[in-house]
Amino acid sequence: MNYRAVISVVGKCLIIEAVLMLIPMLLGFFYGENTYLSFLIPILGLVVVGLPMSIAGRKDNSFYVKEGLISVALVWITISLFGALPFVIDGCIPNYVDAIFETVSGFTTTGATILQSGMPEQMSKSLMFWRVFTHFIGGMGIIVFVLAVLPNDGSAMHIYRAETPGPQASKLVSKMRHTARILYLIYSGMTIMQIIMLVCGKMGVYDACLVAFSTAGTGGFMQFSSSMAHYNSVYFEMVTAVFMFLFGINFNVFYLIIIGKFAKAVLSEELRAYFIIVLVATLSIALNILSTVGRFGQAIRYSFFQVTAISSTTGFYSYDFETWPAFSKGVLLVLMMIGACGGSTSGGLKVSRISILIKTVFADLKKIFNPRAVVSTKFEGKPLTKESESSIKTYFIIWCLIAIVTILLLMLDPFASGEDGVLTNVTACLTCIGNVGPGLSKIGPATNIQFAGYHPLSKILLSFVMLVGRLEIYPMLILFSPRTWKKAG
Amino acid sequence: MNYRAVISVVGKCLIIEAVLMLIPMLLGFFYGENTYLSFLIPILGLVVVGLPMSIAGRKDNSFYVKEGLISVALVWITISLFGALPFVIDGCIPNYVDAIFETVSGFTTTGATILQSGMPEQMSKSLMFWRVFTHFIGGMGIIVFVLAVLPNDGSAMHIYRAETPGPQASKLVSKMRHTARILYLIYSGMTIMQIIMLVCGKMGVYDACLVAFSTAGTGGFMQFSSSMAHYNSVYFEMVTAVFMFLFGINFNVFYLIIIGKFAKAVLSEELRAYFIIVLVATLSIALNILSTVGRFGQAIRYSFFQVTAISSTTGFYSYDFETWPAFSKGVLLVLMMIGACGGSTSGGLKVSRISILIKTVFADLKKIFNPRAVVSTKFEGKPLTKESESSIKTYFIIWCLIAIVTILLLMLDPFASGEDGVLTNVTACLTCIGNVGPGLSKIGPATNIQFAGYHPLSKILLSFVMLVGRLEIYPMLILFSPRTWKKAG
Repeated sequence: MNYRAVISVVGKCLIIEAVLMLIPMLLGFFYGENTYLSFLIPILGLVVVGLPMSIAGRKDNSFYVKEGLISVALVWITISLFGALPFVIDGCIPNYVDAIFETVSGFTTTGATILQSGMPEQMSKSLMFWRVFTHFIGGMGIIVFVLAVLPNDGSAMHIYRAETPGPQASKLVSKMRHTARILYLIYSGMTIMQIIMLVCGKMGVYDACLVAFSTAGTGGFMQFSSSMAHYNSVYFEMVTAVFMFLFGINFNVFYLIIIGKFAKAVLSEELRAYFIIVLVATLSIALNILSTVGRFGQAIRYSFFQVTAISSTTGFYSYDFETWPAFSKGVLLVLMMIGACGGSTSGGLKVSRISILIKTVFADLKKIFNPRAVVSTKFEGKPLTKESESSIKTYFIIWCLIAIVTILLLMLDPFASGEDGVLTNVTACLTCIGNVGPGLSKIGPATNIQFAGYHPLSKILLSFVMLVGRLEIYPMLILFSPRTWKKAG
Repeated sequence: MNYRAVISVVGKCLIIEAVLMLIPMLLGFFYGENTYLSFLIPILGLVVVGLPMSIAGRKDNSFYVKEGLISVALVWITISLFGALPFVIDGCIPNYVDAIFETVSGFTTTGATILQSGMPEQMSKSLMFWRVFTHFIGGMGIIVFVLAVLPNDGSAMHIYRAETPGPQASKLVSKMRHTARILYLIYSGMTIMQIIMLVCGKMGVYDACLVAFSTAGTGGFMQFSSSMAHYNSVYFEMVTAVFMFLFGINFNVFYLIIIGKFAKAVLSEELRAYFIIVLVATLSIALNILSTVGRFGQAIRYSFFQVTAISSTTGFYSYDFETWPAFSKGVLLVLMMIGACGGSTSGGLKVSRISILIKTVFADLKKIFNPRAVVSTKFEGKPLTKESESSIKTYFIIWCLIAIVTILLLMLDPFASGEDGVLTNVTACLTCIGNVGPGLSKIGPATNIQFAGYHPLSKILLSFVMLVGRLEIYPMLILFSPRTWKKAG
């Protein structure tokens, strides 16, 4: 393996993190908070560690799939380890394991928190900004950002493929650097639009920025324990719901719209499937919760917000869905697993993967029932190869295996080993691997304790699982596979 | 499609059912119960319907996969519809939908019951015998029985493949009829052995027969609401546990032992995997429940019994495992999904299928990490073809999809739509599709209400799911696929 190249990529990302951390530090000065040391120490650490690494350079250009996967895994782990430091130094999250959980949850845009009810309200503005800003950084992927600002080279494609979610990471334009810049333009543009719309509704600029960052990354952290329910505003909920839906769409679609290929954009099969899923889920939950929330208008309001929040894997809530009937909770759990579109900032298995999976098994069924039939499957107008079908099946099965092992390990935690243990641990795993945020039972949206109740080992396990979900399994598996390091040299 | 051939197979099975129903009728006379009409009417019905069907004969010999799958699905549905009649006529299960659920649960060897606490004790001995006897009939497969007694013809292999569980239904000997007879000899021999051992421990002959029938079919019905806990006897529990384990083994293994190929039998990869699963599960649950049940000996006793009961998908219980810590319940849920060996009377996904699945995805992972590596997978010493790997992946994914849809539909049932709805409905689906029996929460082993609480539509859905599980998906899907009947003629 090409160690130097990997080290260099990690180093560059640490420097970027140092630069990004300057923003909350300056914000601390602006708000007159005495928090600059909480950021300055980690920034110095990042520079001291990152600078020599980044200039280590590379002797040869052998940068392949393996190097790409390992770089991505290492980058995400190291930026989380450094990103957790401000919370510990400030003291708002004194325990380092807790801080790591929170930071991984931030960068992976999960939004699961160890902050107990009332604690977010006590955080200083600069620290809270950093907490939510990690969503914005993680949403598009920090390495894609590196690609956008640094000169292009051979490593780009392998990194891009490893970090960008979804089964097919298609190049928007031929040059990687160009691609990354366009992605960031769309991403930032939409975020600014949301900020403006929230401010128009009389939300403070600071609040609007945080809500928009959290939405853009489909994260879910909020400056209030009661999440979106804090505002109790139909306008804020609807604006946010629409943007959550939008950030769940494959960014290729926006690119096609920008370059005027509107028809092609709307014809995207994944987009239509995503739209239908959100529509059907919204209507069925609205009907199901009608007797719980009263009027149909209210039911649609809460249902639409919650469906977009879970489907896009943001994880906001505007109503304690723990109190909804089992069917609604079941639909939300299914949405949690599916997630939104590939090539978006969302988590989950991705709509495209599920679509291909269903099409493939239906084709397989046809072949079983009529062995002589010629059956072909297409997605987005293109025929699927046996290899791509098989790799998506494999992905799904590995996902299931990781989920089952995680759930069993969580059950050993005394936190949720009793009556409500099964539900708590199953949803904890699903919400973390899907990068969603809230679960059910003890980690339900409006509970006081949240993930703080888990044992440190479980928090580390769940951090691993969040990274598995965000980086789509393979980078984390190859990093922790003994085989990778056995024949090293 | 060759309708005549299908009709003929169904007809023959109805006649067999009529003959089998004579046994509980005669038992009713023996015990001086006034229940003969409850059996005589269905028997006459079976003969009147079955006889003309069976002699309809077949004009041509075109009997392929499709005919095999549809015959099997139709046979299992019709024998359940007739098999439910004695309960309704007798009045012990007055509602026909309830009776169908109970009979499907019997034939599919699930053991999920709509009898509320105390009701089994009120049933007459002949009716209870029929209830449990359905397990024995369904365990080996009624059509395999038909093959054993009727002359062999072209349809045999397709039917055998469709009815026998597990990924590879290997022919034990070249002639199907011979195979079926050997299977029934092993099956009956082991059942008699268990009866003798139970009687030696001073269990009444009637009780011993029922427990053995329920064990042999890996069913789970019992003449007592409190299942095996009724006896509170270590001896009965251990004998039953060992036989539950044995009936979960592929019958090929016993055949190999009978013909003296002991080494080959023990070398079976599936057997070893099954053994390891049961061993690991028993030990980990024993450690986990230590503080709940007190002494280590007791922990091993309850753990071993419950692991074999769930793993073999029998579903007996000797301790209310609902009260165990979450980890133990989690392990039991995983065992529920896995089931025991292919070619046994058990349900679930089967150990062989899970082994192949895990081996295949690990090989896929290796290929992803080292694209140039040559990776091959073997099972039972033979290399796996791409086709068999793919078909097992497909099977698993369809199984997951059916489970998810079923769970969502169950959530609409008012029975379990509240707080404990998610857990109740998820485990109801898993226990039915895995042909296990008990679930958790409202359908936990020792609850009063059992499946009686579900809406009739849910009972029909769960009956369908039990058949899906027992017949390994495809027969039920092809029967209810509109395409099957569209171009019929």
